[in-house]
Amino acid sequence: MPFSDDRIRMMVTAIVFSIGDELVLGQTIDTNSAWISRELAAIGVRVAEHVTVADDQAAIEKAIAELAARCQVLLVSGGLGPTEDDLTRQALAAVLGQPLEENPQAMAALIARFQKFGRPMSPSNRIQAMLPRGTLMIDNTAGTACGMSALLRSNDSEHSCQIFVMPGVPGEMKAMMTKSILPELRSLAGGAVIRSRTLHTFGLGESVIGEMLGDLMQRGRNPSVGTTVADGVVSLRINAAFPSSMQADEELVKTAEACRQKLGHLVYGQDEQKLAQVVAKLLLESKFCRSVATAESCTGGLLAKMLTDVAGSSAYFQRGWVTYANEAKTQLLKVPAELIEKKGAVSVEVTEAMAIGALQASNSDAALSITGIAGPDGGTPEKPVGTVCFGLAFNPESPEVMTRLFRFPGDRAFIRDRSAKMALTLLRFHLMQIALPF
Amino acid sequence: MPFSDDRIRMMVTAIVFSIGDELVLGQTIDTNSAWISRELAAIGVRVAEHVTVADDQAAIEKAIAELAARCQVLLVSGGLGPTEDDLTRQALAAVLGQPLEENPQAMAALIARFQKFGRPMSPSNRIQAMLPRGTLMIDNTAGTACGMSALLRSNDSEHSCQIFVMPGVPGEMKAMMTKSILPELRSLAGGAVIRSRTLHTFGLGESVIGEMLGDLMQRGRNPSVGTTVADGVVSLRINAAFPSSMQADEELVKTAEACRQKLGHLVYGQDEQKLAQVVAKLLLESKFCRSVATAESCTGGLLAKMLTDVAGSSAYFQRGWVTYANEAKTQLLKVPAELIEKKGAVSVEVTEAMAIGALQASNSDAALSITGIAGPDGGTPEKPVGTVCFGLAFNPESPEVMTRLFRFPGDRAFIRDRSAKMALTLLRFHLMQIALPF
Repeated sequence: MPFSDDRIRMMVTAIVFSIGDELVLGQTIDTNSAWISRELAAIGVRVAEHVTVADDQAAIEKAIAELAARCQVLLVSGGLGPTEDDLTRQALAAVLGQPLEENPQAMAALIARFQKFGRPMSPSNRIQAMLPRGTLMIDNTAGTACGMSALLRSNDSEHSCQIFVMPGVPGEMKAMMTKSILPELRSLAGGAVIRSRTLHTFGLGESVIGEMLGDLMQRGRNPSVGTTVADGVVSLRINAAFPSSMQADEELVKTAEACRQKLGHLVYGQDEQKLAQVVAKLLLESKFCRSVATAESCTGGLLAKMLTDVAGSSAYFQRGWVTYANEAKTQLLKVPAELIEKKGAVSVEVTEAMAIGALQASNSDAALSITGIAGPDGGTPEKPVGTVCFGLAFNPESPEVMTRLFRFPGDRAFIRDRSAKMALTLLRFHLMQIALPF
Repeated sequence: MPFSDDRIRMMVTAIVFSIGDELVLGQTIDTNSAWISRELAAIGVRVAEHVTVADDQAAIEKAIAELAARCQVLLVSGGLGPTEDDLTRQALAAVLGQPLEENPQAMAALIARFQKFGRPMSPSNRIQAMLPRGTLMIDNTAGTACGMSALLRSNDSEHSCQIFVMPGVPGEMKAMMTKSILPELRSLAGGAVIRSRTLHTFGLGESVIGEMLGDLMQRGRNPSVGTTVADGVVSLRINAAFPSSMQADEELVKTAEACRQKLGHLVYGQDEQKLAQVVAKLLLESKFCRSVATAESCTGGLLAKMLTDVAGSSAYFQRGWVTYANEAKTQLLKVPAELIEKKGAVSVEVTEAMAIGALQASNSDAALSITGIAGPDGGTPEKPVGTVCFGLAFNPESPEVMTRLFRFPGDRAFIRDRSAKMALTLLRFHLMQIALPF
């Protein structure tokens, strides 16, 4: 928690409040709240909560009143449309104890918008120009529903909350935030800034990574370090909350460096970087290995797909095989049928032969092979579901191979995804000329 | 609003509560809450709110206590990991007023899991077997953190709330919901029911689909029909809200049939069905085409990956080629170099030769080929980014080929995804022996 620090106590606290049946019914995934939170964090406004309720006036009223009592800024989105199930303006009017009245500026903007697109304005649209008395209109540059801004004071006037209401349509909400609300909040927040960075690792579990980081993950530390796992990637989230952006940037870099020191080459990238992009960069910069071919069994093309996710991949990837059946391994990659017979298709011996076969049938500097049991069927006591063998052949003139066997937990999709990432990791360490640390 | 109906008032009310710094900071989009809500709606449990707070023990405690006071079921996810920033179990213990103690069943499951995957258990993992005294353990079949279930009574015993705590990792949460929590809630819910079904189409745009559906999409209709688009798939969401499950089921089926009548074979599947699964089923049941090979250029293995996403895919898929470079097309698929020279690698002529080459180099009944410009670079005025050619070769004794050229909008990832799905769609219509409707 980057916010337990005393220096940060003065930070403005916000709550993000979304309204819509489609959200509470789960028919639409709420992407607005995450977007709003990122924008607020970047200007030093701390988001304490996300709350979502249905298009139900009583529930909206109750939520606005309760949430406004425990934050300085309440960002509301949704329920501003022209139809009967849009009730946010009515609820805000009730909480403020003010009647809805036509706002001339809002009505002029509404009429102008309909004229611009040559569409007739239906009577029901007029409601979109109605605002609770005393609220300020916020211009909507991307749609018909204007936003609203109002200050809600507690009865004893000891606490006040600035409420902003925006449409739920992401494009309209984002335009309104960017053009009108964020500039206003930036001055309110006055300096304090959160800077974030995420470092990505692959290969070891979250708890091992946590132990390697030790004190860096201590609660209350600022910058804070937390871990999350997604698709087999264990990521470190570093958040630095400081009064000035310069200080936040400096401290962020220091903590990021400290994390990298603890984890060494386990960290493959940061923020938006994907494993395949990092491998691509290494291939493009390598002096001894500038291209790779693939020979896949259980991953069925996923490894080649990841390598070619990267724009410009034709510079280092020219061909790959999906040899799902044993005969395909024999015919296309010259894996001896007797070897498969004797050792089993899922064996380091076969994966070795696949890698060499792919290296020799391509003009590539290296070849990666994968064969394993992705399940749900096909497991045996000796080779349970999740057993996956890897090969990396290199040095085409006089081929060398390294092989590995791993056992992955999880379901078919998880095993396949982890296998492809593990193959990329083998290649990554080969390109760095460093021994695999696991 | 399906819930304004009097008949529905007695429904069980739930709140979905998510915990995580990454969520309130907006670094991760919360997809769990929407999934949980859909599952609850399907069994007639009404979701009143979604709430999200950071990994802050005081905030978690406060939220659990307040939310539990206004619902019958509280579904909590997140903060059960082994690291210091995971505080949900501590917060639950505080709200319940009970100490954390080692749960023998949870510890046994934890040890078994680590043994199964041959990984050493680190000391920090032991915390994952600690539960507040008196809570029930919920088995985690997909990860290490077990879930918890506890009944929280108000001081006057007038109100009680059943609290379920799950890991935040989507796969683990979903497994726990499906296997343990939903079956328990289903009996609790009894009565008013929302039944949902989603029909999937691929190939035409949302507005065209909307026009074909006409009146069926009218607002206020029950069952309601709405459209959503995700990854190029236009889906119809049908919701039937009725007092009895029998009536809801009946009305749902009637409306789904009416939608299928309007759209014909454009509907490829429903609910969790993926296009590749539908194609797999058709291949397994076909009398004339029981296997398929792949020859991919711009999709780089994605088509083979989709075909092998399906468990048991070895029955119909034995081999595939990723011929990214022109020489790979020539050497592996016998595409004449002069043809590539004359027509360009992205041409229906080359895609035709690739499909025939793949058909002849495999023992498959059909072969799919894809070559195109996924971008961001490589486009020309005649063949802009998004131009993709498809081939489907069949009848190995005397090969026939159909080819198509499509132009897709969007970025590299979108074009590749759409291309692989379009190839599956070509095969689907071939297997149904119906002409492609676009």
